[in-house]
Amino acid sequence: MDRYLVLSSDGHVGLPPGGYRDYLDPKYREIFDAAMKIQIEKTREAEKLFLVKEINEAWRRGRDRLLTGAWDHGARTEVMDGDGVAGEVLFPDGITEMNAPPFGAGIGLTPKGNDRELQWAGARAHNRWLAEFCQMAPERRHGVAIVPATWDVAEAVKEVRWARANGLGSIMLPVTWGDHKPYHHPAYRPLWAVCEELGVVVHFHSGPADSEQYFGSWPPDPGEPVLRGAMGIYVSEVAWFVARPLTFLIWGGVFEDFPKLRVVITEGTSAWVPSYLELLDQRASDHPGNAKLGDYKSHLKRKPSEYFARNIRIGASIPRREAEQRHAIGVGNLMWGSDFPHPEGTWPETAARLAASFKGLPDAEIAAILGGNAAAVYGFDVEKLAPLVARIGPEKRAFA
Amino acid sequence: MDRYLVLSSDGHVGLPPGGYRDYLDPKYREIFDAAMKIQIEKTREAEKLFLVKEINEAWRRGRDRLLTGAWDHGARTEVMDGDGVAGEVLFPDGITEMNAPPFGAGIGLTPKGNDRELQWAGARAHNRWLAEFCQMAPERRHGVAIVPATWDVAEAVKEVRWARANGLGSIMLPVTWGDHKPYHHPAYRPLWAVCEELGVVVHFHSGPADSEQYFGSWPPDPGEPVLRGAMGIYVSEVAWFVARPLTFLIWGGVFEDFPKLRVVITEGTSAWVPSYLELLDQRASDHPGNAKLGDYKSHLKRKPSEYFARNIRIGASIPRREAEQRHAIGVGNLMWGSDFPHPEGTWPETAARLAASFKGLPDAEIAAILGGNAAAVYGFDVEKLAPLVARIGPEKRAFA
Repeated sequence: MDRYLVLSSDGHVGLPPGGYRDYLDPKYREIFDAAMKIQIEKTREAEKLFLVKEINEAWRRGRDRLLTGAWDHGARTEVMDGDGVAGEVLFPDGITEMNAPPFGAGIGLTPKGNDRELQWAGARAHNRWLAEFCQMAPERRHGVAIVPATWDVAEAVKEVRWARANGLGSIMLPVTWGDHKPYHHPAYRPLWAVCEELGVVVHFHSGPADSEQYFGSWPPDPGEPVLRGAMGIYVSEVAWFVARPLTFLIWGGVFEDFPKLRVVITEGTSAWVPSYLELLDQRASDHPGNAKLGDYKSHLKRKPSEYFARNIRIGASIPRREAEQRHAIGVGNLMWGSDFPHPEGTWPETAARLAASFKGLPDAEIAAILGGNAAAVYGFDVEKLAPLVARIGPEKRAFA
Repeated sequence: MDRYLVLSSDGHVGLPPGGYRDYLDPKYREIFDAAMKIQIEKTREAEKLFLVKEINEAWRRGRDRLLTGAWDHGARTEVMDGDGVAGEVLFPDGITEMNAPPFGAGIGLTPKGNDRELQWAGARAHNRWLAEFCQMAPERRHGVAIVPATWDVAEAVKEVRWARANGLGSIMLPVTWGDHKPYHHPAYRPLWAVCEELGVVVHFHSGPADSEQYFGSWPPDPGEPVLRGAMGIYVSEVAWFVARPLTFLIWGGVFEDFPKLRVVITEGTSAWVPSYLELLDQRASDHPGNAKLGDYKSHLKRKPSEYFARNIRIGASIPRREAEQRHAIGVGNLMWGSDFPHPEGTWPETAARLAASFKGLPDAEIAAILGGNAAAVYGFDVEKLAPLVARIGPEKRAFA
């Protein structure tokens, strides 16, 4: 093979506003129609905060057709072929300012400020559409079903079974749980059990944080001045919040009881991993600075870093600085992701960005991080993809 | 000089139960008497969770007299002399299980679950006693006044002026603010202004975290089983919570507006610093993976790491692993601390523990981390301390 198999561990898809109507349970369509105007307004407000208009417009210029790849099969295929990406893991929220599932069921998934019944309805609408979208190219698309599990674990278990039966091999859980139960609570055991049983991969994707703390309220009250530094605090803390569930899962013994469970942290960078693992391993030990406060009541059988190595994967853009830390993070734990169609992603410069990050590293390590690790976790059929890779994959010589 | 000036940036003092009565405003004494039984009971409950009985008992054996150094001038002096420590920065909560100021005004300082008026009363009682205790050896003791500022900034400003007028050169603020205003809010500007004006150093000391999330309630309901992993999650997250205010202060522009303000993070380890600064510097930049979400509305004049280098100091036990990272953290930002009289501290093996951490490092760097940095920040009179150091300081040859 003179080309790399590239699998993006972080792609986004979603229908344009209104498109989800047909995928909603009919009983929610009336409220959807009423809510859509508000949703569009809310998204525009968020856009003002989250998107630098000039950067976004410059990035979009001349790309309107290809950006329909956020929901259109043909355009998506064209984009991925052009970018050298053989397969993708697909999260919600296509184009940032216009393709979120309804009722707060998108990337910002959290129970906070949302309605239980509606959030489930929005999640199911997206999951139904996503199952169809993935079926158009099942060997290239691995769909992540949205599961707002903190409302009701029994419902979540049912949704995991539905997802698996409909070709979706992954789920995404809320990063922040509001006043619901955190993830070390035994109430979630049936969820971990079914995911392990069916080989369904559990994801936490960057998005939710402690926004009310930064902005005063979320969404910010119109007319209220946004506090200085609010956005900086958000982008600084959001990477901590997306990885936070790991601390609860590791200490809660979830990976002892469900040793085959796989959990992926997506788009939360990877730079935090080495010092995080050092801290957790220290806290699980009896060294003198720590013994008094050690977790003596629930000492784990293995070191936290061992559960991390076995059960956790990181989906990230992996700039050069993080590629250089790959051994401290775990070469087998890192999975590159493009983040298409978000402006902070690598499209349409993926080949150049990959070379900038990985040039000169050992071939086997590049192969693992760009595709091998994701193929193993998600079950992509590498043999079936081989002819495609031979045609579109980035040439290895560009990495030499 | 063939000995090091050693200043501990992390010492603890506090009166035994009941001792605070005389230092309280008289109108709170009745409620204090009624609350004391509850307070002792609460402390015993916390002790069961926080202290490994066997470790604590083994550590205390034969040391009862010297441990009265938590509040007794003579015993404290004897301990410090024996440990080679010339001066100390003094926080509340002496012996973990028995010397906290009343009404939730100790190391766990947070408005959450506390009463505004009583917490202020408890804080003031401690501050009054502490001022007396420091006056018994002013050249060796730098007292940290407790200031529950999130309730009322005007009150906090008054307390800072009282502290400075009474020989206390530092304050400690709540690490977690509950539903009060976070520290980037402009409401706190008068507090930063007075601290800068009077050269009062602001501290956040490790203790509070998100305990209700880990334990279900805090303190845990008697009879309720503690969730598996709760303590492990606490000891893992507590280090993030103590440093969290920095993110709000840096992005909020506090160090732009108050360039001489000094903020110290105490007992929160230092291992997190390099990757934290990398993340913040990246988030403050316009690089492609970030531009969309960059803090474009409040871009800072300097890099976050520059504010850190200039305005922030770290008080920590500094195990060898962290001493080796001193350049990435900042040699000028690190201040060693003993944590006496807490069992996780270095007493009575301080000399051996210091050598284990710093042996073989350049002399000037050891001198800075063990005492020079703290002398500069807190204004210890190095010349006055010189004869004492010549008598009790650890010999440099033990570090060669």
